[in-house]
Amino acid sequence: MKKEMEALWEEVRELSLGNSTEIDHLNSPPTPLQFLRDYVSQNKPCLISSATLHWPALSSWSQDTYLTQSLSTSPNVSVHLTPHGNADALVPFPNNNNLCFASPHVQQLPFREALHLITTTTNSDSNSNTQKVVAYLQQQNDCFRSEYSALSSDCDDHIPWATEALGSLPEAVNLWIGNHRSVTSFHKDHYENLYAVVSGEKHFLLLPPTDYHRMYIRNYPAARYSYSQESGEFALELEKPARYVPWCSVNPYLSPENVEAEMSKFPLYFNGPKPFQCTVKPGQILYLPSMWFHHVRQSPDAGGRTIAINYWYDMQFDIKYAYFNFLKSIQYRSIHDPTLPETASKDTDSESDCDSIAYGFKDEFSANGFVENLAGGNTKEE
Amino acid sequence: MKKEMEALWEEVRELSLGNSTEIDHLNSPPTPLQFLRDYVSQNKPCLISSATLHWPALSSWSQDTYLTQSLSTSPNVSVHLTPHGNADALVPFPNNNNLCFASPHVQQLPFREALHLITTTTNSDSNSNTQKVVAYLQQQNDCFRSEYSALSSDCDDHIPWATEALGSLPEAVNLWIGNHRSVTSFHKDHYENLYAVVSGEKHFLLLPPTDYHRMYIRNYPAARYSYSQESGEFALELEKPARYVPWCSVNPYLSPENVEAEMSKFPLYFNGPKPFQCTVKPGQILYLPSMWFHHVRQSPDAGGRTIAINYWYDMQFDIKYAYFNFLKSIQYRSIHDPTLPETASKDTDSESDCDSIAYGFKDEFSANGFVENLAGGNTKEE
Repeated sequence: MKKEMEALWEEVRELSLGNSTEIDHLNSPPTPLQFLRDYVSQNKPCLISSATLHWPALSSWSQDTYLTQSLSTSPNVSVHLTPHGNADALVPFPNNNNLCFASPHVQQLPFREALHLITTTTNSDSNSNTQKVVAYLQQQNDCFRSEYSALSSDCDDHIPWATEALGSLPEAVNLWIGNHRSVTSFHKDHYENLYAVVSGEKHFLLLPPTDYHRMYIRNYPAARYSYSQESGEFALELEKPARYVPWCSVNPYLSPENVEAEMSKFPLYFNGPKPFQCTVKPGQILYLPSMWFHHVRQSPDAGGRTIAINYWYDMQFDIKYAYFNFLKSIQYRSIHDPTLPETASKDTDSESDCDSIAYGFKDEFSANGFVENLAGGNTKEE
Repeated sequence: MKKEMEALWEEVRELSLGNSTEIDHLNSPPTPLQFLRDYVSQNKPCLISSATLHWPALSSWSQDTYLTQSLSTSPNVSVHLTPHGNADALVPFPNNNNLCFASPHVQQLPFREALHLITTTTNSDSNSNTQKVVAYLQQQNDCFRSEYSALSSDCDDHIPWATEALGSLPEAVNLWIGNHRSVTSFHKDHYENLYAVVSGEKHFLLLPPTDYHRMYIRNYPAARYSYSQESGEFALELEKPARYVPWCSVNPYLSPENVEAEMSKFPLYFNGPKPFQCTVKPGQILYLPSMWFHHVRQSPDAGGRTIAINYWYDMQFDIKYAYFNFLKSIQYRSIHDPTLPETASKDTDSESDCDSIAYGFKDEFSANGFVENLAGGNTKEE
């Protein structure tokens, strides 16, 4: 199966995506037909410039005071706290150094305090307590239309050409405010994603769903951070009863001391085709197709913040999705293959791998009435 | 691999195509966006009524005299002659009863004579010589815009909503005139196909590309009929040098004496999900998605003819096509599987299976300047 799968990774690039690490870049928004024909239908990403230049947010959100005043009478917001910025990611469990899937500490705070935590993390010196906390506003429960509704007139409710192409309004619109330390690890979503940056920059690594086996999706024990404001320290605790989360094992940015070990553990990723790279700037929108694996880092604006809005539109569960599930169901190497490395035999067969069901997001999202009927489990993450 | 592949056949029906044998039926033409979103992008067929009611052809072509007078000064047309109506199909080779892929005898005739052959086949009594010849006008070289250009004002040059959706004009437009004995065996095309019936009815059996392994595509030696007008007899001769054509082995309509043998040879077809069925009537258009397997029979009008026009639009060689090629590259059962039946080990690995490269159509078509750059080989057949 090795040869056939490697041919698939190559062919989708040769036929459709291109052999460079760049994605298509449009200078202005496409027509709905062009968007649907050239990108959505082909499950192919693109970056669109001059897409949101008319949004008041592009200028008004550059000042913290505008945001804090606008949200001063809103209810508390949900801020995600971690010690190192990697919320919903694999981290070594302190007791034994085995990797676990760590969810952040979620705290309800007035927006002003949440924003202060985000910007002071960035600007703090190394002796301050605050630098031990990385705060990220990244609640993915349609929060822009709920917690942040006071800001709704600063952005479009939806992306008109995408709405017309996809035939429905967005299922969820989320606001993201983070700093340079916030990272989202490789995962995928069961949504068509229109990702608009308002301030700062977002840096995406993208891999098509055909590259499933290159992500080494494995089951990891679920854990959760809890943060003590008194001590300023985090504790990481395994969930009880134990729960296992299928997640991508690959960290694409290796520290020098890890390079050799990680590359030998995940050769299909590191020795195969390079991921597509894309930086999204204010005014631009990334079309991130459903089921694509993506890893996200960010660069802050002058105020230490990266701000983005994303629009999740329902995807079609069509022949592409059926083919993807078929691919998933196949092992990279036959289990009878005597040359099989140990890691390759541990693929999860979970129905919902490295997406939100992992994180309990489904309940959260459904409870708000946004999701009624999603084939193949629910999703999360930017 | 058996279990995974069977799950794919089921899932594409459960998710997208439906579990009945019917395809979607629209009462009027879709908008370009609807067509692209709900059908082309999903690689899903549909039948569209009231699609061509404005064509003058729907009334004027009911009379042979209108057609023969319109084409009276046109050059000769290419008529395909076979003894039993199965042009481009598997037939037993007389010497040894082994199946070969038989191409028809192609004869250049004035249109009036070609049409007479078609209609007299239908109406002839069993003692006449003519009943031994099944004539079919089915030249797939953009013939409606060349050999039959005198009729062009009777139909649209293209299907406007399809052209807008697909972003280009048709690559080829073909005229088909046959009778009740003309049958086209299971095959697929690398085109998006808009198939409009003008007179009589066409009966399609349709299977999605995911069902590749259910078609038992095998290599068959190429042969060609030659017809002697003097004797009124056909001779079938193997091509020299020998050439092998990958073709679908399944004949879906079994004669009682063949049922048991055929069903035991092709259990994946006969015991698996039923093909989708669709009858296309005058005024209707079938959207036959690229890469779908299709088998076509026809019922004649009162004059003994079935007349249709089909529009071939370029397909996108995108992630769906890459997935299809991946599926093709995998055996239904591992070759190491001791329970493997003999037939399952003979899958062809040809690049262009059961489409036109088999038939030398590529040269013919390219020579006319219509095809320049087709990934994955060229195509033919209705």
